[in-house]
Order: sequence, then structure tokens, then C-alpha cells
Amino acid sequence: MTSSTPLSSAPASGMRDFLPGVVGLRDWAAAAILRTYQQFGFTRIETPALEHINLLRKGEGGENLALIFEVLKRGDKLDRELQGDSINRSELADLGLRFDLTVPLVRFYAHNQGNLPTPLKAIQLGPVWRAESPQQGRYRQFTQCDIDIIGVKSEIAEMELIQATAAALLELGFKDFTVRINDRRILTELAQFCEFSEDRFEAVFIALDKLDKIGIEGVRKELHAVSHSGEATDKLIDILTKLIGEEDFLQLRHALPSTICPDTFGCLKNVIDGISQLSNGAYSIKFDPTLVRGMGYYTGMIFEISNPGYTHSIAGGGRYDKMIGKLAGRDTPACGFSIGFERIIAILSDKGFKPPSTVPKIALICEPDRDSLSEVMAAAEKLRGDGSIVSILPRKKDMRKQLDALVAQEFGHYCTFRPDNLEVKPLSAGKA
Amino acid sequence: MTSSTPLSSAPASGMRDFLPGVVGLRDWAAAAILRTYQQFGFTRIETPALEHINLLRKGEGGENLALIFEVLKRGDKLDRELQGDSINRSELADLGLRFDLTVPLVRFYAHNQGNLPTPLKAIQLGPVWRAESPQQGRYRQFTQCDIDIIGVKSEIAEMELIQATAAALLELGFKDFTVRINDRRILTELAQFCEFSEDRFEAVFIALDKLDKIGIEGVRKELHAVSHSGEATDKLIDILTKLIGEEDFLQLRHALPSTICPDTFGCLKNVIDGISQLSNGAYSIKFDPTLVRGMGYYTGMIFEISNPGYTHSIAGGGRYDKMIGKLAGRDTPACGFSIGFERIIAILSDKGFKPPSTVPKIALICEPDRDSLSEVMAAAEKLRGDGSIVSILPRKKDMRKQLDALVAQEFGHYCTFRPDNLEVKPLSAGKA
Repeated sequence: MTSSTPLSSAPASGMRDFLPGVVGLRDWAAAAILRTYQQFGFTRIETPALEHINLLRKGEGGENLALIFEVLKRGDKLDRELQGDSINRSELADLGLRFDLTVPLVRFYAHNQGNLPTPLKAIQLGPVWRAESPQQGRYRQFTQCDIDIIGVKSEIAEMELIQATAAALLELGFKDFTVRINDRRILTELAQFCEFSEDRFEAVFIALDKLDKIGIEGVRKELHAVSHSGEATDKLIDILTKLIGEEDFLQLRHALPSTICPDTFGCLKNVIDGISQLSNGAYSIKFDPTLVRGMGYYTGMIFEISNPGYTHSIAGGGRYDKMIGKLAGRDTPACGFSIGFERIIAILSDKGFKPPSTVPKIALICEPDRDSLSEVMAAAEKLRGDGSIVSILPRKKDMRKQLDALVAQEFGHYCTFRPDNLEVKPLSAGKA
Repeated sequence: MTSSTPLSSAPASGMRDFLPGVVGLRDWAAAAILRTYQQFGFTRIETPALEHINLLRKGEGGENLALIFEVLKRGDKLDRELQGDSINRSELADLGLRFDLTVPLVRFYAHNQGNLPTPLKAIQLGPVWRAESPQQGRYRQFTQCDIDIIGVKSEIAEMELIQATAAALLELGFKDFTVRINDRRILTELAQFCEFSEDRFEAVFIALDKLDKIGIEGVRKELHAVSHSGEATDKLIDILTKLIGEEDFLQLRHALPSTICPDTFGCLKNVIDGISQLSNGAYSIKFDPTLVRGMGYYTGMIFEISNPGYTHSIAGGGRYDKMIGKLAGRDTPACGFSIGFERIIAILSDKGFKPPSTVPKIALICEPDRDSLSEVMAAAEKLRGDGSIVSILPRKKDMRKQLDALVAQEFGHYCTFRPDNLEVKPLSAGKA
């Protein structure tokens, strides 16, 4: 786009306008999630949208680092960067839009820890920005909704995060979903046991993560492509073969080498047994030794929730005990769970879900050129007395069409203003 | 800041972190405002934070145009701009952060009008960004809260905006505030009557706007500085002298030349009389012919709310009937009112206001190494049964100190976990 391009009224590429109905659904879902999390003792915090560019670039954002929207320096600072023969691209920006809520949370905690409760049980709900290729149909601004517990090393943190997230999903009408859980330390020790070289671990995990989609032979091919050791690949494939189709925790545990992470399995079992009891059959939890999760910063348990009928997960998280120490100077245990807010909204929209309306919504139709405006306003105020929503609307020429439009806007009642008589009539499609 | 600067954990200059207590207050205020506006039939819409840079630059943002945070182009697009000998600064960015909610609303309406109700009664609540000098102590990200009615030409729109905004302020505990109202057309015809040259009108208005602060002689000096016509200045000063200290609408009207805006005064009187009746003495409304408001896009009535004891206004708005036409191709009447959300929050904080807590908040203290975690979780779930907020917290060594900290976090009760006995005890400062 150059300066001479005529102005378009469309939102910028990859960005969305939200019309009243969509905002209604999003606000309803956000309120249900917040209410649930607050019941578990979480409280909301907020960080700014813009962070120092160096914090974002050095953050452990994985592939998101390439997707940062960078903010140009201003005034003299920009002048200085543009002088001289060679311009250093990376010096043109001093700020960037956050690409997730975890990097800002870690900075927030490092900066404010003296004024925060320990443990901190934080809710974050807000937009993040990623310069994704618009071709891929991904949004460049989208909402994330995270809860994090900072300062608890016991697995009671994981249990609370899982229970609270599941409770929020149940509140939104989701059911029969499955929490899959694993531990990064199991993955690491498994890769060590198979004797992959350490610099290949992440690549091995990425291959493993695809087992569901590409099957055992697919994983074997990927492993051959990323590892120089055919022996290590064979060892891992042998183990995976025993895991496939197995759901029972003990069977899965026995399919893995017994030297791996004895303590970790104890904690995992605690979480799985505890959540199974609490879930009361409304959802399930299972150990999945092939669950990887993309972010390199995880250090312990990791978890994901999948919804029947949908391939993408609807929530994901894990423990990241080493991340805060890098900024705060002292390691602090931390664990988080993020609901895929946009996916939740997409699924609710798919299902044609509409938030329940609790308050009567009345259109008070007047003729501004004829009626006394202060009488109209007083009439509206009177109708609002019982808590009703009352919207004053000028009468249109075609009143039948106007009433039909009001039905579409979810007005349940209307009233044609008359000074002496405020009769409220029901509105329904086709009957107006 | 260069790449070699060590990472700081402070938010970027002019940006703020919000801790739980502050978010609690902000969320409470936002919810009260939204609830009130919804009762008046307004519905929330949302636009993206980033807009095309050309929309923002060509927007009627006045002095805010110099304060846009611009987003650097990416990939090949940026490469092309950086090639060659002379770099065009204005071509380095393709997007910018919105500096207000009005420019995006106008774009939103132009783009989506076919799918929007007429009239559109929109609420917007969200952050905007301005690259203010941090020395001035201004925030570079702050929340705005606007309502707008698009598609109503009658002054019933102004009346609804004023009544809804006043109702929201009353709901927040504000009282005895004053709505000051004027009309841009009166200002224009007054300047014409005094025979200022048209290119000086804005400068004349700016001087007029300062009457409260700099007095009549101050205004005279400013007018002399901006206008070549001593005669025009004398004429205006004569009129202003008659206005000073006058509160009564009719007296003010008679102090102004009788040829000015006869119809406009009729509408103004309707609004003032109507709102006076509706306000029931809880707040007041008065005509203020020296009220100007900064934005050049206003075309009709303008209004502002001032709170006793504070110099800055806490809300402001007006009619802008010509702005949508520039993007949508067809003029559409529009009128808006914006609450100064940050000022509201600052005043509430000043007063030490705390949002009322409606739900009991219980700390369930456990010892993760000793207690059965699933029993602790089940106990918390049981305590939540009546709607209570229950936060599971690991016991600290110094329990007295821990309980004191819980009081500061506004826990009203605590319970030390025992499998056989869940006794909930009250918590109060110093008594823990």
C-alpha cells in the first residue's frame, strides 16, 4: 500500500471487525471463563500491548519471533537510524506488539514481584498480535486467555489449572472432552534412553507429536530424516509400538523403560487420579506419552484438551520453572494453562450457540419531529424501571420492515410512544 | 535502546502493568458503565488495534496524528523500502496503532453498514495508543470508552447520549457534576458575526476555550495574537463580557447576537430542558457558549462533563455529521460521547474507593507434601458449593504472616485443611 492508494474501509489484512452479535457471544464466553477462574481464586492482571522489542526478540517465543509486529522508532531516534550508508534493520524498531501472554507475564512477575501475592494466581485475557501470512486464513490479532500459578512447585498447581480450565469449558457448554497429559522430563529421558544425540531432541519430539496424524511408519520416516542414528530410531519405534492404542496409565507406564523418571510418574498419577475423581465423568484425563507441545520453555508436566469432533486442541499448557529466573535472577516455579479463545468461539458459532438473554429488550419507537422528546425520554426511563433494556428508536416509514429488523436484533418487545399510553407488545418474527 | 542493552523487566516507557487490585477497580468500573449503556439499548462493537497507516494519517485526528505508533513493514516489502539511495520515511510503515476510537468507528461503519442496524447505537471500550512524551507523565496506552449513535439526525440522539453517560457516572458514584453544552454552529456564526477571517476561526475558538482559565484579558491578548482584526476582537470581547458569570439559558441567549442560529437554539433548549427534568437534581446541565472541544470534525452540538473539584473534564463529545460521508460516500448523521475512563479511575483511586465484594473469599490452606491432593481439591470444591471463591494455597512457614497477607488480598475467611473437618474461620487484620 502506498500513500497514493485510495482509502479502503476494510480492516487491515488479517484483522477483524466484530459486529454486535459476535461481540455479544465473545463477551458472554469471556465473562463465563473469568467468573469460573475467579471462583478458583485467580485474579486478573494486565500488561501493555507493546513491549521492548529486545524483550520480545529474546523471549522464548519459538517460531513466533519471526511474526512480531515491530513499532518504528520516532523523531530523532529514527533520524539517527536512517542516517549513514548502511541501515541496520533491527535498529529501526524499539517496541513490538506482544505475540503471546507468557513472555509479558514473566516480565510482569519479575518487575512487580515485591507487590504481588505469593503464590500469584493470575488470569490474563487479551489480544495478541502475530504477522501471520494472511493466505493461511489466520488472524493477525486474536484473543488469548491464560491462567498461571507462579510460586507453587507441588503438582497441586497443575491440578488446579486443569480443574479450573475444565470447569470453565463445562460452563461454556463443552463436555466429554479429554485432557491429555505428559511430562517433558519423560520425553527427555526417553530420548536419552534411545540414545538420540541431544541436539536432535526437539526434532525427535516434533516427529513424536505427529504419531496421531502420520502413524508409526510416518514417525519412523521423520526420525530417519532428523537423526543420524538408525539404532535410536528403532529403539523409539519399538517403544511407540507398545504404546499405540493403550489408554491405561499403568500399561503405558510399563511400556516405557522402567528407569525413566520414577518420581515424575508418581506426580502424574496423583494428578490423573485426582482429576478423574473430581471430573465426576463429565470429562476424562489420560496419560499420553506422545504429547509434546511446541514451546521449548516447558520443564515439567504438559497438558492439552481436545474436543470430540475437532482436530485442534482447545486448551494447552504446562510447567515452565526456568523462565522467570532468566529475567528475575531467581528461579521461580510456574505453571500455566491457556484456553484457545478463538477456537472456543469458532466452535460455539459453528453450533449456532446464542448466549441466553436474561433481560427483556424493548424498542420504544417515537417520532422525533412530532413527539415531545423529554416525554419520550421519561417514558423510556419508566420502562427501564424493572431492569428492562429500552432503546429509543425513531420511527421509520415502513414500520413493518422496522419491526422485522428489530426481531433480528433480538428485541423481544416494542412500544409505540403515546403520551397517555405505554403499551408494550411482544415482537416475533413474521408476526410484526 | 540498542540490542546490547541488558533486558529490563520494567514496562516500556509510558506503559503500565496493572496489578490485581487495580484491575479489580478497572473491571468493576467498566462493567458498571457497560451495564448502564446496555440498558439504554447500546451494544458493544470492536475494531482491531491496528489500522492502515493511511487511514490513521488522513483521519481527522488533529494533533494526535503526530503521535501515531507506526508498525514497520515486513519481509520483502521492507526490503524494497530500504533499497536505493533515499529512504522515504513515510513508506516504512504500513500499519499503525489507533489513537482514538472515532476514526476506527467511522471506518467500521463505512465497511459494515449493510450488516448493521439503523440507527447503530454502539459502545466501544478498549485501549488506544499515543506516542506522547513520557516526560509529560501521560500514558502511551490508555482505555477509552465511547458511545455513538449513527443514523439519527434529531437531537434525541444527543439527549440519549447525555442521559446514558450521566447514568453511568451516577452508577460509578459520581454526583453533582455539570454537563456543559454548546453548538459548533453557534461558535462559527459568532466568529462570522464578529468578522474574523475564516482561516482564523479555529484559533479564535481555541482562545475562547481558555476563558475559564485565563480570563477576559487573557482571551483578548490571545485574539490579538491570532487575528489581524482588532475590530473583530473588540466585538467578540464585548459579547464575552456580557456572558461572563451568566448561567441562565435565556440571558445567555440574549447576550449573543439575535441573528445567530435561531433553530439551533431551539434544539439546545429542548436538550437542556429535557435533561434537566430527567436528572431529577442529581446533576445539572447548562449552556456554555465558550465551550469549544478540540476536534475539528464536530458539526453540531458539543458537550463536556466536569466534576466538582477537578479541572479536567471527565467526559466529552458531540455531533459529527460530515465524517462518515468522507469514507462511506454518503453523509450519515452521527453523534458520540466519550467517558474519560482513565480520569474516572484516577478519581476513584484518589478517593480510596474499593469495589464492593459480593462473594465470600476463602483461603484453603494445605500442606502439599503431607495432605492428599485430591482430598484438598474435593474440599475446595465443596466449599465453592455456595458460590464462594475458594483459593487453595500451600501453607507457609510463618502462618501468622501468611494470614496477614491474605487479609491484604481481601480474603475474608480461611480454612486449614483437615480431612475430617473443614472449619471456615473469619480473617481480619491484626487478628489472624
